[in-house]
Amino acid sequence: MTDSWATFGADLHLDRVGGGLRSGLMEALRKAVRTGRLAPGTRLPSSRSLAADLGIARNTVADAYAELVAEGWLTARQGSGTRVARRSAPREADRAAPLSRPPRSGPAHSLKPGSPDLSAFPRAEWLKAARRALTDAPNEAFGYGDPRGRVELRTVLADYLARARGVYAAPERIVICSGFVHGLALLGRVLGQRRVREVAVEAYGLDVHWNLLTQAGLRTPCLPMDALGSRTGELAGTHGAGAVLLTPAHQFPTGVPLHPDRRAAAVDWARSTAGLILEDDYDGEFRYDRQAVGALQGLDPERVVYLGTASKSLAPGLRLGWMVLPRGMVTEVAHAKGESDWMTSAPDQLTLAEFIVSGAYDRHVRSMRLRYRRRRDQLVAALAERAPDIRVGGIAAGLHAVLELPEGSERAVIQAAARQGLALEGLARFRHRDAPAGRDALVIGYGSPPDSAWAGTLDALCRVLP
Amino acid sequence: MTDSWATFGADLHLDRVGGGLRSGLMEALRKAVRTGRLAPGTRLPSSRSLAADLGIARNTVADAYAELVAEGWLTARQGSGTRVARRSAPREADRAAPLSRPPRSGPAHSLKPGSPDLSAFPRAEWLKAARRALTDAPNEAFGYGDPRGRVELRTVLADYLARARGVYAAPERIVICSGFVHGLALLGRVLGQRRVREVAVEAYGLDVHWNLLTQAGLRTPCLPMDALGSRTGELAGTHGAGAVLLTPAHQFPTGVPLHPDRRAAAVDWARSTAGLILEDDYDGEFRYDRQAVGALQGLDPERVVYLGTASKSLAPGLRLGWMVLPRGMVTEVAHAKGESDWMTSAPDQLTLAEFIVSGAYDRHVRSMRLRYRRRRDQLVAALAERAPDIRVGGIAAGLHAVLELPEGSERAVIQAAARQGLALEGLARFRHRDAPAGRDALVIGYGSPPDSAWAGTLDALCRVLP
Repeated sequence: MTDSWATFGADLHLDRVGGGLRSGLMEALRKAVRTGRLAPGTRLPSSRSLAADLGIARNTVADAYAELVAEGWLTARQGSGTRVARRSAPREADRAAPLSRPPRSGPAHSLKPGSPDLSAFPRAEWLKAARRALTDAPNEAFGYGDPRGRVELRTVLADYLARARGVYAAPERIVICSGFVHGLALLGRVLGQRRVREVAVEAYGLDVHWNLLTQAGLRTPCLPMDALGSRTGELAGTHGAGAVLLTPAHQFPTGVPLHPDRRAAAVDWARSTAGLILEDDYDGEFRYDRQAVGALQGLDPERVVYLGTASKSLAPGLRLGWMVLPRGMVTEVAHAKGESDWMTSAPDQLTLAEFIVSGAYDRHVRSMRLRYRRRRDQLVAALAERAPDIRVGGIAAGLHAVLELPEGSERAVIQAAARQGLALEGLARFRHRDAPAGRDALVIGYGSPPDSAWAGTLDALCRVLP
Repeated sequence: MTDSWATFGADLHLDRVGGGLRSGLMEALRKAVRTGRLAPGTRLPSSRSLAADLGIARNTVADAYAELVAEGWLTARQGSGTRVARRSAPREADRAAPLSRPPRSGPAHSLKPGSPDLSAFPRAEWLKAARRALTDAPNEAFGYGDPRGRVELRTVLADYLARARGVYAAPERIVICSGFVHGLALLGRVLGQRRVREVAVEAYGLDVHWNLLTQAGLRTPCLPMDALGSRTGELAGTHGAGAVLLTPAHQFPTGVPLHPDRRAAAVDWARSTAGLILEDDYDGEFRYDRQAVGALQGLDPERVVYLGTASKSLAPGLRLGWMVLPRGMVTEVAHAKGESDWMTSAPDQLTLAEFIVSGAYDRHVRSMRLRYRRRRDQLVAALAERAPDIRVGGIAAGLHAVLELPEGSERAVIQAAARQGLALEGLARFRHRDAPAGRDALVIGYGSPPDSAWAGTLDALCRVLP
C-alpha cells in the first residue's frame, strides 16, 4: 500500500452517482487518478478490505475494480494485485485555450439586420403541426432516409414555391438543407468538384457567404452595382466565373430589386456560357407596396439554383432551407448533402410540411407581412418627422431598410448609438473588399425587435440620427 | 398580334391559383412562354382587350403584365406594347439526368445492421418533451445561436455522459452536431486545417466514414486487428498518422471491446506524438452481460474526442450527435460547425435536453436494452438449436452480432437469403481495402426489425444458414 493510497483512502467518501455506490466509487477513483492524487503504480487495497473500510458489499468494490480495469484506469496482474495503470506523462502541458465566454448582456436595443421578430414564432401552431406530423409519420421516417429530404416536404414545397414565388419546382428537383448557409456550402463543394474556380458575387452582401465559397476553394470577384441592381451584363467580362450569387427579389442589403433587363442579362450569360445562377430568395415573401416579384428561377430552371429558407419567414433556429436544382445537379448535390450530415432532421421536415399544408404557414406569413409593413411605415414616418434629411433607400419589402447618412458620418453615428445602448450596423460592413467605397448608410433591421421594444428602439434611433 | 398569341389566346382558361385570377393568369402566361407556345417577341393584347375577352377586371390583367415584366418574362416598351421577352436559346439541350427513383418495395425481411427498431421510437414522450421545451424556451432560442449548440443541451449532456459513460465532460467542451457523420466531417476538416495527413482507421468499419475523411484530404491507413481489438501498439509505426478513429466500447462490426492494454497503448501513442483519438461511441449504452465499459475519453480528455449520437439510442432521423472535445479544439470545431450549417436545429436540441432531464431518455434506453437483450438471447438460442455449427462472435452488446460462417460461404448465403426475401450483410462489406482477407461471416442487425416481424425474420435467417 503506497502513500498515495494512504492519503487518498482516508478522504474517500462515496457519492451515489447514477447507478449507485459502484458508480460513485468508480467516479471517485477516476477523479483521483486524473488529478494525480492516486499516482501511477499505486497498489489499491483488496476489494475485501476496501469494502470493509467503506461498509459496502465486497462485490460492489470488485465490480468497480473490474470496470476500471476494462476502461484502462487500473491494471490487475496475477500476484501484484490491482494497481493504478502506468501511463506516459502528457507530452506537454495542455495549453488550456480560453473557452469562449457566454455573451455579456447585450445592448438594450438592437436594429441590426438579419433576424425576424423571434417573439412572434408561432410556438403553439408549430407544436400542433409537430403533433400531427409525428403521429402520422410512418416508422421509416425515423430512420436513415433520402439525403434529398422527406418526400412529404418536397412535395408540399414544390406546390408552395410555384404558387407563392413562381418557382418551376418538382419534388424530384428539391433538396432540403439545414438553412441557407448549409445549402451554399453544399453548392460550393459541388461547384469545386465541377472545376468551377470563381463565383461572382454582388458588391454588397454577407461576408459569411463569401467566406463559405472561399473555403470551398472558389474565388469571389464582385459585380459592380448601380440603382438597377447588380450589373449582370458584365458577367461576360468576369474572367472565368462559372456561377453568380444573386439576391434578385430584394438585394441584400441595399434593398433594390434586380431590374428586368439585368435578370434577362443574367440568364443570357448563364445560357451562353453554361454558367449557373444561385438565387438567394431569403425574404421573397415580404413585399408591402405590391405583390412580390416572382423568382428568377422560372426563367430558366436548368441554369438557376433557387435557394429558400424558413429563417426569415419563421425562425433561423429551425435550420430549414431548400434548394430547387437543375435536373442535372440533383444527384451531385444530394451526394454532397449525404456526406455532410446525411439528411436534415426528419421531425422538423415533417412538421414544416404539415405546417404548410394546414395553412398555418400562409397565415403566419400574412400576419408577419402586416406587422413588418406597419413597422416600416412607422420608421419612415418617424424619420420624416424627426430626421427629415435622412433618405430611406430600397423598396418597401423585407425586414430591413437602408438609411442614407451625410457623407463621412457612418462610424460616428454607430458609435454614438452604441454609447446609448443601441446596436446598429453600417453599410460598410457589407461591402465587398473589391467594391468601390460607397455612400454612408445604416442597414436597419426593423424586423428584429419584439413588439414590446419596438417603440423604444425607434425612439432611440431617431435620437442618434444627425 | 402574332400567330403565336392567336393560337394560345383561344385556349386560355384561368385557374384560380393561390392569390386568385391574377396569379392564375400569370402562371398560364409563364407556362406558355416556358413551353414555347408563346414565342419570344410575341406581342400581347392590350390589358383592356384581354380583360374584356376573359371577362375580368382590366386592373387584374395590367397587374399581371407588370409583375411578369418585373420578373423578366415580358417586356414593355413605349410604343411597342407588351411583348414576350427575347431570350437567347439554351446553349445546348439540357441533358435531363435520370432522377433517382424512389426505392422499390424492399425485401420482406431485413437483418442489415445500423438501425435501431424504428417502431419503438417514443413518439408520445418525445412530443411531450417538445411541448415543454418549446413552451419554456426563451425567444432567443429561435434565433441564430451559438454554433456549439444550446447551452441547455450541453449542460444536460455533460452530466449524462459523466454518469452513463464515464466521460470527462463540461458544457464548454461540447459541440452539438447533426449526427455522427456530421461530427466526423467537421473533425476531418479541422484536422486538414491542422495539416494532419492521415487518420488511422480500424480494419473493419464503415466505408462511408472512411470516404468522409478521404473527402477532407486525409489518408486512411488501417490498423491490424486481432481478438483483443485493434492493435493500437502499431500506431507508432503508422507513418504520419495524426489521429486514429476507434470504436473502443464495441468494435463495429466485429463486436469485440478494445482490450485495456490496447486502450493504454492508444493513449500512450497520442500523448507521445501529440496525436488525437476519435472515439466513436455509437452504441455504448447497450451492453447486456455486465455494466457497459466506460468511454476511453476519460483516460485523457485532452487527447481524445468523444463522439456520441442519438441515432442508436433513439432514432437516426433526429440527426442529433455530440462531441466532447479537448479544450484546445473547441474554437476550431465550433468555427467549422458554423461554416457548415451554422448550428443544429434548436427545437430538436431543446427537446432532447428536456427528454433527458425528465428521465424519459434513461427509461427509453433501459426498455430498449431489455428488448435488444431478449432478441440477442433469442437469436443465440435459435442458432444453437437450428444451426449449431454457427458461432456467434463479439460480446453481448449493441444492436448487432457476428455469425461466423463456413469458409467461402458468405456470398452464397447472402444470395440465398435475398432470393427468399431476407436482406443480409456480410462481413466482407465492412473490410478495409488494405486489410487482409478475413473469415466469412454475417453481420446481423437484430435491432432493426419491428417486434411484429422479429419472429418471422429470425425464422427466415435460420432457414438460409448452412
